[in-house]
Amino acid sequence: MLDQLLAPDLRAAIQDGQLDGVVEFFGECHPADIAELLQALEPAEALVLLQRLDEQHRADVVSELPGSYQAELAALLGAPELAALSSSLDPDDRVDLLKALPQEQMDEVVAELDAEDRAEVERLFSYEEGTAGSVMTSEYIALPAGLSVSEAMAKIRAEAHDKESVYNSYIVDGGGRLLGKVTLRDLILAEPTSPVEAIMDDQVPSVGAAEDQAEAIYKLSHYDLVDIPVLGSGGELVGLITHDDAMDAMEDEHTEDMERFMAIAGSHDDAGYLQTPTLSHFKNRVLWLVALAAFGLVSGAILQGFESTLMNLMILAFYMPMLAGTGGNTGSQSATMVVRALSLKEITPRDALKVLWKEFRVALLLGIVLGAVAFLRVYLIPAGTGLPEGITLPMVGLAIALALTLQVISSTVLGAALPLAAARFGADPALVASPALTTVVDITGLLIYFTTAKLVLGV
Amino acid sequence: MLDQLLAPDLRAAIQDGQLDGVVEFFGECHPADIAELLQALEPAEALVLLQRLDEQHRADVVSELPGSYQAELAALLGAPELAALSSSLDPDDRVDLLKALPQEQMDEVVAELDAEDRAEVERLFSYEEGTAGSVMTSEYIALPAGLSVSEAMAKIRAEAHDKESVYNSYIVDGGGRLLGKVTLRDLILAEPTSPVEAIMDDQVPSVGAAEDQAEAIYKLSHYDLVDIPVLGSGGELVGLITHDDAMDAMEDEHTEDMERFMAIAGSHDDAGYLQTPTLSHFKNRVLWLVALAAFGLVSGAILQGFESTLMNLMILAFYMPMLAGTGGNTGSQSATMVVRALSLKEITPRDALKVLWKEFRVALLLGIVLGAVAFLRVYLIPAGTGLPEGITLPMVGLAIALALTLQVISSTVLGAALPLAAARFGADPALVASPALTTVVDITGLLIYFTTAKLVLGV
Repeated sequence: MLDQLLAPDLRAAIQDGQLDGVVEFFGECHPADIAELLQALEPAEALVLLQRLDEQHRADVVSELPGSYQAELAALLGAPELAALSSSLDPDDRVDLLKALPQEQMDEVVAELDAEDRAEVERLFSYEEGTAGSVMTSEYIALPAGLSVSEAMAKIRAEAHDKESVYNSYIVDGGGRLLGKVTLRDLILAEPTSPVEAIMDDQVPSVGAAEDQAEAIYKLSHYDLVDIPVLGSGGELVGLITHDDAMDAMEDEHTEDMERFMAIAGSHDDAGYLQTPTLSHFKNRVLWLVALAAFGLVSGAILQGFESTLMNLMILAFYMPMLAGTGGNTGSQSATMVVRALSLKEITPRDALKVLWKEFRVALLLGIVLGAVAFLRVYLIPAGTGLPEGITLPMVGLAIALALTLQVISSTVLGAALPLAAARFGADPALVASPALTTVVDITGLLIYFTTAKLVLGV
Repeated sequence: MLDQLLAPDLRAAIQDGQLDGVVEFFGECHPADIAELLQALEPAEALVLLQRLDEQHRADVVSELPGSYQAELAALLGAPELAALSSSLDPDDRVDLLKALPQEQMDEVVAELDAEDRAEVERLFSYEEGTAGSVMTSEYIALPAGLSVSEAMAKIRAEAHDKESVYNSYIVDGGGRLLGKVTLRDLILAEPTSPVEAIMDDQVPSVGAAEDQAEAIYKLSHYDLVDIPVLGSGGELVGLITHDDAMDAMEDEHTEDMERFMAIAGSHDDAGYLQTPTLSHFKNRVLWLVALAAFGLVSGAILQGFESTLMNLMILAFYMPMLAGTGGNTGSQSATMVVRALSLKEITPRDALKVLWKEFRVALLLGIVLGAVAFLRVYLIPAGTGLPEGITLPMVGLAIALALTLQVISSTVLGAALPLAAARFGADPALVASPALTTVVDITGLLIYFTTAKLVLGV
């Protein structure tokens, strides 16, 4: 909102070369807000403004820009300038910037970094996307065992300027293995002469660098932490995930969950909806849609198989959309409940039987209510179509109600079972997307519907 | 998981009265983990264990229990005991506990609180559920203006023991209005004699107590904050929302978003999936389902209107499920994208035209691809049913393909337009739930399908 109001003013100031006012105004703004403002400008315009900020402020703003915009800015800069910019970023933001660049440009920039930064980048690069290692920062305060409180405070004071997180300090042994943590609060409350080990907490929740980032987010939230240490395979401290990065990752995971659940493919760039090109939106959606449409043709084949039943009893066709729709809705509901409960760790795949039994009971109640509604509709509002000899409206109503009840039960249980099965085999439960489920229960629904009609009505 | 493994051991220890080992074990555990363990026990068993913990530890554990379990525990306690327990909780957790109780019991407990706590509780109660005021804590460090750094540190040291959040201290004027904030990091780095105002940040993001809690979460995440101050209507500091409470609220909002989007009603208690009774699950889902099923009968009425078309050209029936399914899928996809972009503030209702234009272009591409697939299917795999005189298979294919393309375009645009309209009128965009949308596009789809077929094929 702000960005659209101010963009013309900023643009005018750039064209007139009157940047002092802008720079002064930016001095009052939070880097996150400046980043939002810049995105409303062309990268070349944004660059003019960025170059007027001091190094630290510029780094803070750049780290708040989405990857796609960073890449556009980077395209205007040479490798040495980019290397200088990336050196001023926090290690985790530096890696994010480098990952946003085309491979060739990235290699050029990495080659320009000084040896220490390069080694750091290569180390952080080695963690797979989506792991705790890939989102951690390597700037944290590690204290060797054996310091006194006042020595620890002196070390923290000396390092605090360029660390992202200073509120927890981590105590490590000679091999870099994590022994415990001490909070800044505990340090300022403690006797200056007492040893840090005496006040440290040795029960520190931590996460392995190769573990899923979702695990880190879960622990950070579960234990109400400001940050969580990341350990290498030997128990050595290799990084830290801070609460703000965890919150960002949480939003990203949630977006991906919802999109995946709606069968929208692709990883979600934080570029935002409007900045993502139409063609990317198209690509992310089309494959699943075509696959589901092709699969949906199976329904057609089933209908074809029941053509004579349908011809004899046209009234059955009128209730098909309700049957299919209700099956899809109940299945999606139970799938949503189960996917969400799994991701909140309220249940695990080992609870499958309990969950299915609960969903079965819920489905039975829902099926009876919905079946009754369907029966009343068929019975009370005659369909105006002729019924074949020997078949009465209540009989039709009964058949449709019974089919709907069975459809509700089967799709609810299926909706709960599929994500549990996915989780059981290590896949993402949200992959059993709602559209896929809807397509499946369309097919089972038609089979149930016509089989029930044939059995009850004998057509 | 842990809870199911250990529950039998805990139960045995309680029955044997051998609680020392358990208490010792609990001493090593994080309160959040103990809370998880206790929930696997009967409330009466849990109470035995809780009573063995020291006051602070007990309060920490109780605050991690879900409201429904707190209420079960509370049912076993008298008002004076409950008042003592709630006094040892942080103010925001105290309010959560009291809100979990039946009205009558709550009144009894509030009457037992000392005057100060009671006034506090009544003040926090006055904020509506879902506002920033309803999730804030009233324990924060406020410093009067005019202190030196060393005086500030002394005050923080004195208060740090019973404050939830000590990393940011807020400077207020004589009227309690917020002037700025200073971090503990800045304080330990500053000259002890310099005035706090010299190092404080006077551009502090804050949130109004009556604003939506989502606004507080958004700002906390946007500005990478550890906590965010909550202001009363006159700009006076009234509370603080900490990052851990914001993360919990974020998870709750996500769950409600997804559930609402799948037309599951009811507020989400943090009791968890398995603890929620079957009947509550049923109630949360049934109303929407019945409404949608009733609405879905409109589809039946439309089909009835086209009965003669259908009788003449049975092949149309075979492609109905694909048409309905694809319309539902494309509509749900665009609705998901728009709901998510709105909630991440990537777009606002004022971007409606841009969004609709983008979705229209995406839909056009999707419609052409899906239409082509449908045409090929009809053309290449004959339906085996007789066609009326004068109508050829390619003509039927063309009609179906055209209808599908129109259906994809209309449902995609509708899927984007409805949440935008909801947001425009101040309603929750997720209310335009996916099942509701699916039902609507089922109806528009049938109209499009048969109208197109009539026009193209003249049946």
